[in-house]
Amino acid sequence: MKSLPIQIKLTDNRKEKPNPETLIFGRNFTDHMFVADYDEGKGWHSHRIVPYAPVSLDPASIVFHYGQTVFEGLKAYKSPNGTVRLFRPEENMKRMNLSLDRLCMPRIDEDLALNALTQLIQIEKDWIPTVEGTSLYIRPFVIANEAFLGVSPAKKYQFYIILSPVGSYYKEGIHPVKILVENEFVRAVKGGTGGAKTAGNYAAGLKAQEVADQKGYAQVLWLDGVEKKYVEEVGSMNIFFKINGEVVTPAINGSILEGITRKSILHLLRHWNIPVAERQISMDEIRDAYDNGTLEEVFGTGTAAVISPVGELNWDGYKMVVNHNETGPLARQLFNTLTNIQTGNEEDPFGWILQLNNELAKLA
Amino acid sequence: MKSLPIQIKLTDNRKEKPNPETLIFGRNFTDHMFVADYDEGKGWHSHRIVPYAPVSLDPASIVFHYGQTVFEGLKAYKSPNGTVRLFRPEENMKRMNLSLDRLCMPRIDEDLALNALTQLIQIEKDWIPTVEGTSLYIRPFVIANEAFLGVSPAKKYQFYIILSPVGSYYKEGIHPVKILVENEFVRAVKGGTGGAKTAGNYAAGLKAQEVADQKGYAQVLWLDGVEKKYVEEVGSMNIFFKINGEVVTPAINGSILEGITRKSILHLLRHWNIPVAERQISMDEIRDAYDNGTLEEVFGTGTAAVISPVGELNWDGYKMVVNHNETGPLARQLFNTLTNIQTGNEEDPFGWILQLNNELAKLA
Repeated sequence: MKSLPIQIKLTDNRKEKPNPETLIFGRNFTDHMFVADYDEGKGWHSHRIVPYAPVSLDPASIVFHYGQTVFEGLKAYKSPNGTVRLFRPEENMKRMNLSLDRLCMPRIDEDLALNALTQLIQIEKDWIPTVEGTSLYIRPFVIANEAFLGVSPAKKYQFYIILSPVGSYYKEGIHPVKILVENEFVRAVKGGTGGAKTAGNYAAGLKAQEVADQKGYAQVLWLDGVEKKYVEEVGSMNIFFKINGEVVTPAINGSILEGITRKSILHLLRHWNIPVAERQISMDEIRDAYDNGTLEEVFGTGTAAVISPVGELNWDGYKMVVNHNETGPLARQLFNTLTNIQTGNEEDPFGWILQLNNELAKLA
Repeated sequence: MKSLPIQIKLTDNRKEKPNPETLIFGRNFTDHMFVADYDEGKGWHSHRIVPYAPVSLDPASIVFHYGQTVFEGLKAYKSPNGTVRLFRPEENMKRMNLSLDRLCMPRIDEDLALNALTQLIQIEKDWIPTVEGTSLYIRPFVIANEAFLGVSPAKKYQFYIILSPVGSYYKEGIHPVKILVENEFVRAVKGGTGGAKTAGNYAAGLKAQEVADQKGYAQVLWLDGVEKKYVEEVGSMNIFFKINGEVVTPAINGSILEGITRKSILHLLRHWNIPVAERQISMDEIRDAYDNGTLEEVFGTGTAAVISPVGELNWDGYKMVVNHNETGPLARQLFNTLTNIQTGNEEDPFGWILQLNNELAKLA
């Protein structure tokens, strides 16, 4: 990991830390943040760790009007022996660059960004909660801050990393949720921005979520935008189906986000010699599997929730209750293994964990 | 128009006004802006006109991460006799509410917003340039400013109106441009946000524009996201084809933005008894028309450029030169009529113009 000279200015006013037993996702932020500026011709510069503070932007900033912004999400955990652990952070930095490319935004140096992140977390390590199910959520993001009302890529950007101590994404923890298959609204389509982690994809999904909420469903299952036939994602997670002993997840096709939890689960399944397929999967096929009794488990995967079992799928009024609306054994096993590796309760045989203490020792 | 009690705080530091002969689009902003706040349960409040100043936002604000933002664009002109004229501003406020609905954001009161706009322009009327081709561009926009990293509609928003004295959108004025028909990237798809004026649509279009630039084309022609067969928009404008005496424009279908210039042009054409059709139009049909010599004119329409004639369409390497790469008579006539009505050089028989002086007299 490359070392980055970062200006550090610590706050004089430390905030009170929230009660780890009642943490809500995404509401509390730590005392400091990382910031860097980009100017065309000069590149990224002025890397700094500063007190967490409002962003000051010209009202004509491109991010407000033309949506040039990308983000990432990952988590840090404190292991039982006090070590700070990051889960596959290099994958997030790599994906961030793919997103930046798609949005015509300047790439970051992945190594330097990772180094900045470790320095920030070192400063904020007392903010990492240790109660079961909690972690420090990390949100790197880049916004276009040039003041210009023209539809073209900005010449000025800012890169931020902010940190938020979080509880479980779903207040209830791991338990099956009811999902509405979405036939009207579309999250993303081939040729669009669905494969990038950018704000517009999430904004596009809110309306369908609102309708699902009103009908008593926790999330929507997105279908492809062309034929409305093939499964894409669930809410803002990837989705897996266990059908007759085989685990199937939609193949990466340009409109699906390539989740890092998705990738890790595929790795675990293959490691366990469980049959796995990444391919197109239609709702017809899922209904057939349900009808003939081979739809064994369905679950969503993502950084925030890790694993989110699906207890019911409603497709145009046809209700499919999965595994008696209980968390299936595979979902449970994947959740336990992943979270145990993340938190340090189980060994990491895959080299997924970056131990902060080791990294900082290398820099010293 | 309803009257709105607005707190007004004027600046002590007036900026120097830019040279109207060399104005660039979207780079200069006036001395003041309008702002209002929204809080769930309380509604829109604290309407105010204040000195133009940076927006201060928590780094976790939803607009940065999940893209809840919508905007509008319209223009004010100063007529030869000094009257300030707005072109169909009520249409913009109406469309803004449709966009806000799609993005799960709170509606504004259209009348009150229009009133706020007229008060702001009255204060800034010396900023309206009068050189031919210039105007005062008006940018209303709403952003979600709740600090929350969760994918759900925000509970807090801000509504801004900023003003920018502008020259022509295209530096060269009205003249034909070369357009690349886009076969890979997609701007929007049925069920998505294409019909709303929201940042993500514009962000999605940047990559294709970059590729077109590199190939020497000014804009891309967007095809539908499902079959990549039917024409949708050109760049960030609506598009019209004159084929064998009839003017055809894609029908509003959910993925096309319903332009106010588009609507005005349809009205003018019908008023002139020129045959008009709003329907699906495929690239095959356009190529056939070109091949048999009936593709008479092609032009884009939008607030920024008003009319932008297309001189060449490149579809997968098949180059169609339209009207000898010259501005066609219909495009010219539409441009002249619209801009004359807008600027007050020609009478407005359609009730499209809101005269500021009249409106302010009504409020007095």
